[in-house]
Amino acid sequence: MNTKKRNLRWDTMRILAGGFLGTIFLGAFLLWLPICNNEPITFLDSLFTSTTAVCVTGLVTIVPATQFTLLGKVILLLLIQIGGLGIIACTTGFFILIKKKITISERVIISETYSSDGPGGMVKMVRRAVLGTFFVEAVGAAVYACYFIPHYGVINGIGYSVFHSISAFCNAGIDILGSTSFAEFVHNPLININTMLLIILGGIGFIVWFDIVDNGKRIRKHEVPKKWWFTRLNLHSKIALTTTAIMLVAGTLAILFFEYNNPETMGKFSVGDKIMSAAFQSVTTRTAGYFTLPQNVLHNETKLFGAIWMFIGGSPGGTAGGIKTTTIAMLVLTAIAVIRGGEDTECFGRKISKSNFRTGFAVSLLAMIIYLVGTMAIVMIESDSVPVIDIIYETASASGTVGLTANLTPNLQKTSQIVLIGMMYLGRIGPLTFALVFGGRRHAASQIRELPERNILVG
Amino acid sequence: MNTKKRNLRWDTMRILAGGFLGTIFLGAFLLWLPICNNEPITFLDSLFTSTTAVCVTGLVTIVPATQFTLLGKVILLLLIQIGGLGIIACTTGFFILIKKKITISERVIISETYSSDGPGGMVKMVRRAVLGTFFVEAVGAAVYACYFIPHYGVINGIGYSVFHSISAFCNAGIDILGSTSFAEFVHNPLININTMLLIILGGIGFIVWFDIVDNGKRIRKHEVPKKWWFTRLNLHSKIALTTTAIMLVAGTLAILFFEYNNPETMGKFSVGDKIMSAAFQSVTTRTAGYFTLPQNVLHNETKLFGAIWMFIGGSPGGTAGGIKTTTIAMLVLTAIAVIRGGEDTECFGRKISKSNFRTGFAVSLLAMIIYLVGTMAIVMIESDSVPVIDIIYETASASGTVGLTANLTPNLQKTSQIVLIGMMYLGRIGPLTFALVFGGRRHAASQIRELPERNILVG
Ligand SMILES: [K+]
Ligand SMILES: [K+]
Repeated sequence: MNTKKRNLRWDTMRILAGGFLGTIFLGAFLLWLPICNNEPITFLDSLFTSTTAVCVTGLVTIVPATQFTLLGKVILLLLIQIGGLGIIACTTGFFILIKKKITISERVIISETYSSDGPGGMVKMVRRAVLGTFFVEAVGAAVYACYFIPHYGVINGIGYSVFHSISAFCNAGIDILGSTSFAEFVHNPLININTMLLIILGGIGFIVWFDIVDNGKRIRKHEVPKKWWFTRLNLHSKIALTTTAIMLVAGTLAILFFEYNNPETMGKFSVGDKIMSAAFQSVTTRTAGYFTLPQNVLHNETKLFGAIWMFIGGSPGGTAGGIKTTTIAMLVLTAIAVIRGGEDTECFGRKISKSNFRTGFAVSLLAMIIYLVGTMAIVMIESDSVPVIDIIYETASASGTVGLTANLTPNLQKTSQIVLIGMMYLGRIGPLTFALVFGGRRHAASQIRELPERNILVG
Repeated sequence: MNTKKRNLRWDTMRILAGGFLGTIFLGAFLLWLPICNNEPITFLDSLFTSTTAVCVTGLVTIVPATQFTLLGKVILLLLIQIGGLGIIACTTGFFILIKKKITISERVIISETYSSDGPGGMVKMVRRAVLGTFFVEAVGAAVYACYFIPHYGVINGIGYSVFHSISAFCNAGIDILGSTSFAEFVHNPLININTMLLIILGGIGFIVWFDIVDNGKRIRKHEVPKKWWFTRLNLHSKIALTTTAIMLVAGTLAILFFEYNNPETMGKFSVGDKIMSAAFQSVTTRTAGYFTLPQNVLHNETKLFGAIWMFIGGSPGGTAGGIKTTTIAMLVLTAIAVIRGGEDTECFGRKISKSNFRTGFAVSLLAMIIYLVGTMAIVMIESDSVPVIDIIYETASASGTVGLTANLTPNLQKTSQIVLIGMMYLGRIGPLTFALVFGGRRHAASQIRELPERNILVG
């Protein structure tokens, strides 16, 4: 049983890591074909683009709008959608479509990925996630269309609407408008609000969706009262929602405070547009990658703040990157528990298990090490004239799969770009597989022996 | 009992925090007096200098060599010595000197500070620490004198020897030679090796000293065999020694690799001098603050690497700053334990208790938050033209009480300097008091209730 469980964990990791890698190289090959390109492309550029799409990051070394033909753009969109839903959900969705009975082993893998209550409702759950994704993306595209069709004609308008809705929901942040992302829509509330909602919905994770929807159903059926609906959500949803809300509001206020008088960003805007652009920047920084404000002229403090927010990222089980909202909440709550003298990490009247905390801590430390090593490497490769703050911004963006850029990525050395490819890949699959493969494991030795305990001095 | 214990913890914190603060302001007042100064000084500069001395940091806004009179330099040296030994050890030493019987409550406070086995051998232990400090400082001064007396005459030579021996051992890194620290001795093995040994001995902590000395005594008395002496040290000593050795060697290699061909630092040196200057930089980066290589022209990667090393710092129970070697070792070992699937953080055949790990984690998170908030504040205060990497280096230096500087501190805005004062103070007393006051606490509520346990998704 133990060996079986262990093998399952390794299988999970192999499928995730190998699936992502295979998709990336397949995509790189396809995007490298002349039929996909309007102008010649190096394999490194097509590999970078495929990685950025599958890992839903958004950093680019080329300009997709002009680089790719229609076919290239369709392939790019498919890579984004595959990356966003996750290899496993796609595989399962594929199984469902061809009505092949899903094996128990595959069910368990998906169960671990989306942490539901067992392999029972698994197929149903993946179908819900896939259908939910398509539904939200369709609504988002319809809203975009209200602006894009009048402005770009029917054919182009629909194309733009579908592409950017999928890219926003999957938190990919890749656009086919040009090289300034959503900057031209900085004063347009429709595009701003629609994009923010798509990003937030994609970044909050399926578990939270399902929890809210199921809770809503029970309220509609009068099985439970409407009052206190929040307290009936599971602990994961409560923490993800609360942390997301805190980070969005705090981020908006911080960016507003830092950039209020910056003439190169929002300095000359009306107060309303200042707030809207700060809110957009706050939403996009967490994981999305679209931008309305030029990123390279942000103040240094905004970039540093952004790098921290990018490192934390969105919520698990969705399309977001970073160490995740729930992880940072758990770390902070544990520090508070230590200060208060509690044995347990407490939250909303529940305690979080010690092994859960240890997994979250290990995920964070690993992410920190990947981030620091990658940043060190690029700082070393580039000359001292490249501002370190821009490298910090770019590597946080890559490892948090965010995609915001201080206009640095296209101008980096080839070796630095390869480091960024590695960071995007590890940033996307690292925390997830780490939590899946190692979370709650117990190796055989620890069950049969007991070591003497010692304390050491800290601090 | 519980309330009493709790009060004791708060008393400990008050004494430490208040004692440091009182000494800092007293020192600032004395250093501000015209009799101590060759040229006019602002109170902010004297406050900064007093803080840097008491917190054994070494960042300066003025040049001590030319700013202060002989009396000023003596006061500066006393502040360094007081800071290095710790307010509490000094207070106790004072009690011993005047033969006043130490109260039980005071004994317990010191016991917690130096984590010995109870209030029994406390007075003895503090006396040993104080005497050991004076002994090592005397030997260090004697070695310096072999160079300083022939070069600067008897009076000045003795003064320089005593000052720099104390300053090196206390890891203060403040010099009275000029504004380029030990740069003129970069090719001098005697000064280099003596300084490195003083720094390492001061930074390893009294606990490790006592452990090694006691172990050595038992070996000399043939109570235990010489073989396997390392395995008989306590877990704390083993971890502190091993981590220190790893960090020193890795740091030397990294700096050698980064700076090997930098013409502005060691590029033109002989291979031997390259290794010596890299080793010196590695030793000083951990916590000391003296330098032989110019710091502002180090490559960006060396500065970033240095900031990480400064954040980690030296070992507990000594004169070093940072989150400490034992803490980082514990964090890394815990991550390894999670990956290996073990329930416990293991090391040298012992396990580290879960509450010990939680305290170490909380200390590190708190240090990280202080570091990030302080850095954000200074990045915000300074204009975008100040390189962020230099600010990162400077704030890591302040909060790790290191004292290395990219020539930035004297040129910062007054408000930034006040932020640095706060970071030096919190960096010096923060981890220590935090670990003392909150380590292993249990609040009353957690003993009478048991919350339901839930897991949340991470990564
Ligand atoms: K993204
Ligand atoms: K120092």
